[in-house]
Amino acid sequence: MPQLRIGLAQVDPVVGDLTGNADLIVTWTQHAAERGCHLVAFPEMMLTGYPPEDLVLRTSFVQASIDALTALAQRLDDQGLGDLPVVVGYCGRSERPMPALGRPAGEPQNSAAVLHAGRVVATYAKHHLPNYGVFDEFRYFVRGDRFPVVRVRGVDVGLVICEDLWQDGGPVAVARGCGVGLLVCINGSPYERGKDDVRGALARRRAVEAGATLAYVNLVGGQDELVFDGDSLVVDATGAVLARAPLWEQGLVVCDLDLPAAGAVQPGSVDAADGTTMLVEPVVVSADPVAPYEPEPAGIATPLDDDAEVWGALVTGTRDYVRKNGFSKVAIALSGGIDSAVVATIAADALGPDNVHVIGMPSQWSSEHSVADAKDLAARQGLVWSIFPIDGAVEAFAALGVTGVAAENLQARVRGVAVMAVANAPGFLALSCGNKSELATGFSTLYGADTTGAYAPIKDVPKSLVWQLARWRNTLGEVIPPNCIDKPPSAELAPDQLDSDRLPPYEILDALLEAYIGHDKGRSELIAEGFEEALVDRVVRLVDLAEFKRRQHPPGPKISPRAFGRDRRLPITSRWRELAAPPASEPEQAQPDRP
Amino acid sequence: MPQLRIGLAQVDPVVGDLTGNADLIVTWTQHAAERGCHLVAFPEMMLTGYPPEDLVLRTSFVQASIDALTALAQRLDDQGLGDLPVVVGYCGRSERPMPALGRPAGEPQNSAAVLHAGRVVATYAKHHLPNYGVFDEFRYFVRGDRFPVVRVRGVDVGLVICEDLWQDGGPVAVARGCGVGLLVCINGSPYERGKDDVRGALARRRAVEAGATLAYVNLVGGQDELVFDGDSLVVDATGAVLARAPLWEQGLVVCDLDLPAAGAVQPGSVDAADGTTMLVEPVVVSADPVAPYEPEPAGIATPLDDDAEVWGALVTGTRDYVRKNGFSKVAIALSGGIDSAVVATIAADALGPDNVHVIGMPSQWSSEHSVADAKDLAARQGLVWSIFPIDGAVEAFAALGVTGVAAENLQARVRGVAVMAVANAPGFLALSCGNKSELATGFSTLYGADTTGAYAPIKDVPKSLVWQLARWRNTLGEVIPPNCIDKPPSAELAPDQLDSDRLPPYEILDALLEAYIGHDKGRSELIAEGFEEALVDRVVRLVDLAEFKRRQHPPGPKISPRAFGRDRRLPITSRWRELAAPPASEPEQAQPDRP
Repeated sequence: MPQLRIGLAQVDPVVGDLTGNADLIVTWTQHAAERGCHLVAFPEMMLTGYPPEDLVLRTSFVQASIDALTALAQRLDDQGLGDLPVVVGYCGRSERPMPALGRPAGEPQNSAAVLHAGRVVATYAKHHLPNYGVFDEFRYFVRGDRFPVVRVRGVDVGLVICEDLWQDGGPVAVARGCGVGLLVCINGSPYERGKDDVRGALARRRAVEAGATLAYVNLVGGQDELVFDGDSLVVDATGAVLARAPLWEQGLVVCDLDLPAAGAVQPGSVDAADGTTMLVEPVVVSADPVAPYEPEPAGIATPLDDDAEVWGALVTGTRDYVRKNGFSKVAIALSGGIDSAVVATIAADALGPDNVHVIGMPSQWSSEHSVADAKDLAARQGLVWSIFPIDGAVEAFAALGVTGVAAENLQARVRGVAVMAVANAPGFLALSCGNKSELATGFSTLYGADTTGAYAPIKDVPKSLVWQLARWRNTLGEVIPPNCIDKPPSAELAPDQLDSDRLPPYEILDALLEAYIGHDKGRSELIAEGFEEALVDRVVRLVDLAEFKRRQHPPGPKISPRAFGRDRRLPITSRWRELAAPPASEPEQAQPDRP
Repeated sequence: MPQLRIGLAQVDPVVGDLTGNADLIVTWTQHAAERGCHLVAFPEMMLTGYPPEDLVLRTSFVQASIDALTALAQRLDDQGLGDLPVVVGYCGRSERPMPALGRPAGEPQNSAAVLHAGRVVATYAKHHLPNYGVFDEFRYFVRGDRFPVVRVRGVDVGLVICEDLWQDGGPVAVARGCGVGLLVCINGSPYERGKDDVRGALARRRAVEAGATLAYVNLVGGQDELVFDGDSLVVDATGAVLARAPLWEQGLVVCDLDLPAAGAVQPGSVDAADGTTMLVEPVVVSADPVAPYEPEPAGIATPLDDDAEVWGALVTGTRDYVRKNGFSKVAIALSGGIDSAVVATIAADALGPDNVHVIGMPSQWSSEHSVADAKDLAARQGLVWSIFPIDGAVEAFAALGVTGVAAENLQARVRGVAVMAVANAPGFLALSCGNKSELATGFSTLYGADTTGAYAPIKDVPKSLVWQLARWRNTLGEVIPPNCIDKPPSAELAPDQLDSDRLPPYEILDALLEAYIGHDKGRSELIAEGFEEALVDRVVRLVDLAEFKRRQHPPGPKISPRAFGRDRRLPITSRWRELAAPPASEPEQAQPDRP
């Protein structure tokens, strides 16, 4: 059987940075060549970054991507890398345009190319376009229906892209029909908690279905609300895992394969077993197998435990959001509570403690321990500490005469003004400390310190998980003062205030939120699951009324299947309630304020 | 030829208010019965409101819609309206579920039903699902492939839903094949400037294609960022307009028709001329034509001029956002400039002047005329006026020691805090006064008075159109002080500051923004159109860097084909620039601040 050493480059491009991404491809191709690879693959839309969203609706962007691909092929050859076939994702364009209402302008495609000897020798366009969850690919791309079979060193290699693996039929079925020996799948597969398990099982199943070795390469890094975890892997045709990359790290997976010799691939139309036909196109890059060589063992990374995996997502998302936007330092309002303590710790892990400026902003209602705990946290981690007592600024709005919840919001907003000023002046990014439980229930102040800022690292982290992560992080060194973790949560916007005055215990609340939001369960299902009826009605109502606030929240890394932002789009103006009898009038509805 | 009096109910449901929407249907059906109609039609998803977005992913919501439809049929009959066939949009469910990855949970459909004699006698599901611009229907619905032909008073009636009319082939082609005499099209067709012209031309063309009279009924009213303009109309099989409703008004279009007698409709599968087949299903509601009667003349509304049309959109959007969310009063920061003057006038037209609370917030940099002009505006319109000088509050942040642009932002944010406090305390909604030109270029302060609030009435209005609308509104009575319109625009956040210090003249800027944003033109195309190269690079860069700010802006009524919010989704973290050579580093990128 022919041998082949494949390299999978698990790397972190920047959306729109065609030049920088091409540099990254050259660097890692060079590395793969040095490692003796016979084929190297880069992730989905590697050249443009992923997802480029509305950028692909600009014909100038699509053309720039195509031009950059041609230039890249030439450059690889110029740098002596022309012999090594490179599989790379880019934004292409349908060669058979069928303009019609609802098809995107310029007919962009989510494409893969094989580069060899200075040329683009084969291209493939994604066949299954996902349009659910975080994906909107029917909006952006037109489907591909060609299936090149690329002979590399005497092995028939097929290409597929991400969703092509997740849906039944299509190119995986065609790959089997063609008898390809190796199926290269390039991916931009975003992280969700535990997704590595699902992904691994899927890869094994599809490799068996295709009757081919499957080489799966994924992006790593953050892009706005998405975080890509990597987890690139190689599975043989029996479903056995041969190699697997660690999460959250750039790197090259190198794996030696024994593959079936290329057969006689028939060009022409075939039934793709999904209601479409695909056109098989054989392409020969190199017909002769490599000379026999001694394979090297490939690594299989140890899976991370759940807390470490989530922490990695939050740190990666934060680091990439800050750095890719051209910033290096952040400002955080530090209350002494658990949320801002965890956000500051994530930021320090992501950017280094010198780059984390924290500001304590005590008011007349702040407890003594608040400032002490905040200062303690800064000292333990070496963060840059400052303090701005807010009483004078709050007093300056006294002429407005507001009381009650409006006065609480006013305090939070004064802190919001201060943290933005502290961030703006030297050019730092402000990080927002709101968690998912607060965001879900609207238990936050719009434009207050909990919602202002460029990025919200724990936006998709329920409060009970915030504590769990803090405890886990402290097992690696006690960087968070235990008092921040152990004291009862309070917004400290009124005397002796506790979260528990207004919300149910977080472990119950979070379970209910997960069922209602994460699984879209209805009122009767929630009650059948054992949640108290009055609590269901109260929480569901809070959630339904808080969409307005959530809409104005900064982006943050997604770690769950239903995160606020990218994959939840609810009407703000809505009278639908999961209640027995919806109230006729709800004057507090959409009020940009605490409930 | 059989006669038929059709009623088209151009009405304004609320998303999710199944009970209230059913009441609206009964009320207008009663009215249609009193007018002697033989058939009445309501808009797309009338029973649920449109668009319900992620609500349709809840199986409890879909079931509630189906249950409400059954109950509505019974209730109409109970109230003596069972004889009058009613066409109504609702959220249905596929009867032939084919669960697969990427198909929405529970297989919801965007459906139309015919109610008669207490029963649901026919249903149709939208065949062409739009997934571009403001539409995401591949995410939410599964396609219908049945085509009921409903015989009403001896006339064969076909049903289609909105996008079915915009795309070639499908149910319109099937309707022709079946020889239907009347095609009822129910719509949730959002407003865009000049869309009535496009819609009218389309209706005429499709009526001719179908060889049938086309009755087109649309929603009217605001739903978050969408505004529905109504514009319901009836076109005969030659393309002649028989009736047309005014924009922005609820009402019943009544039109007497002479229609071909029903023929022999063959049930079974037919080629839909769009790559699919549809199943024709004849249904008889009533076979005998009505007794001959004297037709009444139908009205054809006079088209509005462009300014009146846009003003109607802004007033309708504002009124519905405020009222449907359960509020009656609004708070607006009034600067004396044109933007807040126009927003206050829109609000007064929408809600009545007593419900518009305006607050002047002069600083040390405010010119004398600012407060005078603001007060003059309030007096002319009878708005509720108050004043809060901000110098003291700004001074209270002096310890932070910020200067320059950060100090300008601080002033704007102090005003943001004040307007939110004024709104929160009594339960008003704050309106935001930012215009599209500012939003596009990032010429605004996040959490400042120009971006805080629940709704932004002129979010999609370029600055030059803001002036034009002010002048137009004053032709109906001089409600806006001429000085607000005539003085040079300034943020007044620093001494002698003018917008023109930082931005090109608005008439040039707005033309460039329209080409770059509205038409997705690339840099070279913009330069070829005559825009100065340096200006293109500067403005394009401002626009590309401002996505972060736009993401946190409140919703506002859409009046253009590419409005920020619903139909523009750009990555925040992106290095793509429509520039000759993108800069290697852009530290100010995404900075939540003025450029």
